Amino acid sequence: MTTQERSENAIATRNFAELRNSLEHLPAFEIGAIMCEMPAQNRVLAFRVLPRELAADAFEYLPFDIQQELLRSLGQEEVAAILDEMAPDDRTVLLDELPGTVTNQLLNLLNPQERRIAVQLLGYEEDTIGRLMTPDYVRLRSEWTVQRALEHIRRYGHDSETLNLVYVVDDNEKLIDDIRIRKLLLAQPTTMVADLLEDTAISLKATDDQETAVEAMRRSDLTALPVTDSDGVLIGIVTIDDILDVAQAEATEDIQKFGGMEALDEPYLKIAFFRMVRKRAGWLVVLFLGEMLTATAMGFFEKEIEKAVVLALFVPLIISSGGNSGSQAATLVIRAMALTEVTLRDWWRVMRREVFTGLALGSILGSIGFIRIALWSMFSNMYGEHWFLVALTVGISLVGIVLWGTLSGSMLPFVLRRVGLDPATSSAPFVATLVDVTGLIIYFGVALVILEGTLL
Amino acid sequence: MTTQERSENAIATRNFAELRNSLEHLPAFEIGAIMCEMPAQNRVLAFRVLPRELAADAFEYLPFDIQQELLRSLGQEEVAAILDEMAPDDRTVLLDELPGTVTNQLLNLLNPQERRIAVQLLGYEEDTIGRLMTPDYVRLRSEWTVQRALEHIRRYGHDSETLNLVYVVDDNEKLIDDIRIRKLLLAQPTTMVADLLEDTAISLKATDDQETAVEAMRRSDLTALPVTDSDGVLIGIVTIDDILDVAQAEATEDIQKFGGMEALDEPYLKIAFFRMVRKRAGWLVVLFLGEMLTATAMGFFEKEIEKAVVLALFVPLIISSGGNSGSQAATLVIRAMALTEVTLRDWWRVMRREVFTGLALGSILGSIGFIRIALWSMFSNMYGEHWFLVALTVGISLVGIVLWGTLSGSMLPFVLRRVGLDPATSSAPFVATLVDVTGLIIYFGVALVILEGTLL
Repeated sequence: MTTQERSENAIATRNFAELRNSLEHLPAFEIGAIMCEMPAQNRVLAFRVLPRELAADAFEYLPFDIQQELLRSLGQEEVAAILDEMAPDDRTVLLDELPGTVTNQLLNLLNPQERRIAVQLLGYEEDTIGRLMTPDYVRLRSEWTVQRALEHIRRYGHDSETLNLVYVVDDNEKLIDDIRIRKLLLAQPTTMVADLLEDTAISLKATDDQETAVEAMRRSDLTALPVTDSDGVLIGIVTIDDILDVAQAEATEDIQKFGGMEALDEPYLKIAFFRMVRKRAGWLVVLFLGEMLTATAMGFFEKEIEKAVVLALFVPLIISSGGNSGSQAATLVIRAMALTEVTLRDWWRVMRREVFTGLALGSILGSIGFIRIALWSMFSNMYGEHWFLVALTVGISLVGIVLWGTLSGSMLPFVLRRVGLDPATSSAPFVATLVDVTGLIIYFGVALVILEGTLL
Repeated sequence: MTTQERSENAIATRNFAELRNSLEHLPAFEIGAIMCEMPAQNRVLAFRVLPRELAADAFEYLPFDIQQELLRSLGQEEVAAILDEMAPDDRTVLLDELPGTVTNQLLNLLNPQERRIAVQLLGYEEDTIGRLMTPDYVRLRSEWTVQRALEHIRRYGHDSETLNLVYVVDDNEKLIDDIRIRKLLLAQPTTMVADLLEDTAISLKATDDQETAVEAMRRSDLTALPVTDSDGVLIGIVTIDDILDVAQAEATEDIQKFGGMEALDEPYLKIAFFRMVRKRAGWLVVLFLGEMLTATAMGFFEKEIEKAVVLALFVPLIISSGGNSGSQAATLVIRAMALTEVTLRDWWRVMRREVFTGLALGSILGSIGFIRIALWSMFSNMYGEHWFLVALTVGISLVGIVLWGTLSGSMLPFVLRRVGLDPATSSAPFVATLVDVTGLIIYFGVALVILEGTLL
């Protein structure tokens, strides 16, 4: 079997690893020759699974019209569909990043629709910057004058997504620096572009996560950032409007986590019913299993409840107060962490604040609870002859439980971040569940001490 | 007493309403003359409490050096301190907006420090756009050529906060339009600026709320927006970085409300202890008072609990499940509303979705609850001989309560928005409290039906 036949066989059977094996040990010119003989669709598949360097070399040996046609094919849905059949992890292993210069040509050749398909084929995973970038920007050379640069912009800038920033590249298309348009506007026409460079460009890698772009844009204060391949070749830019969309999606994720569920990742009214139920059921079940410990704890105090049913009446009130104060504290700390007002090292300061806050809030709620029971007992016999002791039990328990809730709520985000988890996971429901069990133990513990000999 | 003396008296006694009365019926030239005679500090106070039109007229009658000195005084802390003594609402009534042309001169005259004080004196309330604007931007005339505009930018653009947008004004400094720099860059040098106008400028009023600016910037896709006074005179611009700060502060407010408290309005580690406790205690007390109804509800079923203490054991489990599912639903709907994925008119679609979701989630939790009790009962006598009926009670109650929680959580934000409140107020703790009381009624109601004749 010739290499030609072996490759075509491999393509027919969708065995891309075999296809790669059969080609990668040949010299580049030979691969070029073999590819010339292939039908167009097979050619693009062969090209796509070649290792990065080799693909670039083989590409050079193709005639110009076949080069163009090959690139155009990378934007076609049929080709995308075939490569999509591969398992995503296999695909990542098999598909190298394409050489930056090829990517560059490719993206400029395709319309936005085709481009969306092509970036997928380029091997950029979902949620990477590669999926966000646009090829419409202005490139300048450092040896030009400002005058020539402005003329170049006037002539070629029409399609550029932004003119607030322009980009200086060298002969190999490598990024040298970005320049704010303000610098060109304020400079004398005879100044050299080279003299305006500051070498401070923050550039993104196409294979990096989109969250990196959000962070970089926040720090840089720019409205667009350049994207390079791993060799530093400029292959696109990302603009602030796309970044804002990403940031908004992230915020939604955080808020949904905070509401006690997995992030939906889709608009509420659009997501399929069963997918939504699955995402919501997960955490609910976890919380439910945790909350079952309350039944165990209550079972532990069953005898006390039998003796003094009045104690059971205040259980919901007591545990919800712990949950509410905990959820407040968690919210405050999570948000302060997100705004970097509070870092891991501040845990001790936060804890000290929350001890006093918890005591203050607990005393307020405890007093109200005490007064409520005392008032009711003046006009009815609802809480029996020992109402004073019951009121005392409820009041003191509330101080302890609110303190405990505030402390757990404020420290849990620190613990989660410390072990590398997202602090936003310490949602209101999560904190409430955590506090409920201990709340019961505090309540019945206090009751045992105060009511021993009377009701218990 | 002469008018001169009456005014000085009024200033000495800090009676600004009287000061205004004594001046406002005089002709402008006479006010000008009286002001010339005053000591500098009194002059600025008198000027500041004059009605808008009259102040502008009187200003014209002052010699140039006194005009300049007057404006500079508006940025002085002592003057600010005196006007600050007035009650904020009186101040709003008394201090008219200053005429745009005066504002313009004023802001350009002062350094950033003084400017911060001056905008306060200009009568711009906290949280208005007037407090955000900067006077550093480039103004163009419509009768210029693009060439001249670019030269003007090169000469005068150095201090401008942004050059991404420039502003075209008429002879009276009224805003005609904003122009993206890209249009100037792409136009032929001989084109007239007038030919580039599109008359699409979105302008902000200095007296408007800062949230208006956030919304406008989101819609406009621009990185800076022009600010005018009520006559349309351009007095400043706001740039996207200031707007992002405002948007972030708003998000913090929403999140804190959602965590069940008043917004702190200050960084967590900076806010004074007692102010923080007060802001947190408010909602906690409201929730606590609401939660007291659970004690009433439990009291109502005291006899049943006495007969079947086993029922009390599951109370925390039952009510927390309602709270958790409600908090999930509320989070989803609030966020979807914030992103305008869901509007008021969608309430019926959301309700239909949540009925089925609630039933599905309830069945999952109900089954787990049932199985848990059944399993324990195989190995112990914890739940008595009627364990099957107890398990059934818990299982069925859970379906009802989770359904109820989901429905309340998802509908509450609609109700709040309908009556003009912020949907984010329907926080996880708020929903949980609401659901707790009804949850108890559902639970004991189901128990009465199923356990009648056996345990009850």
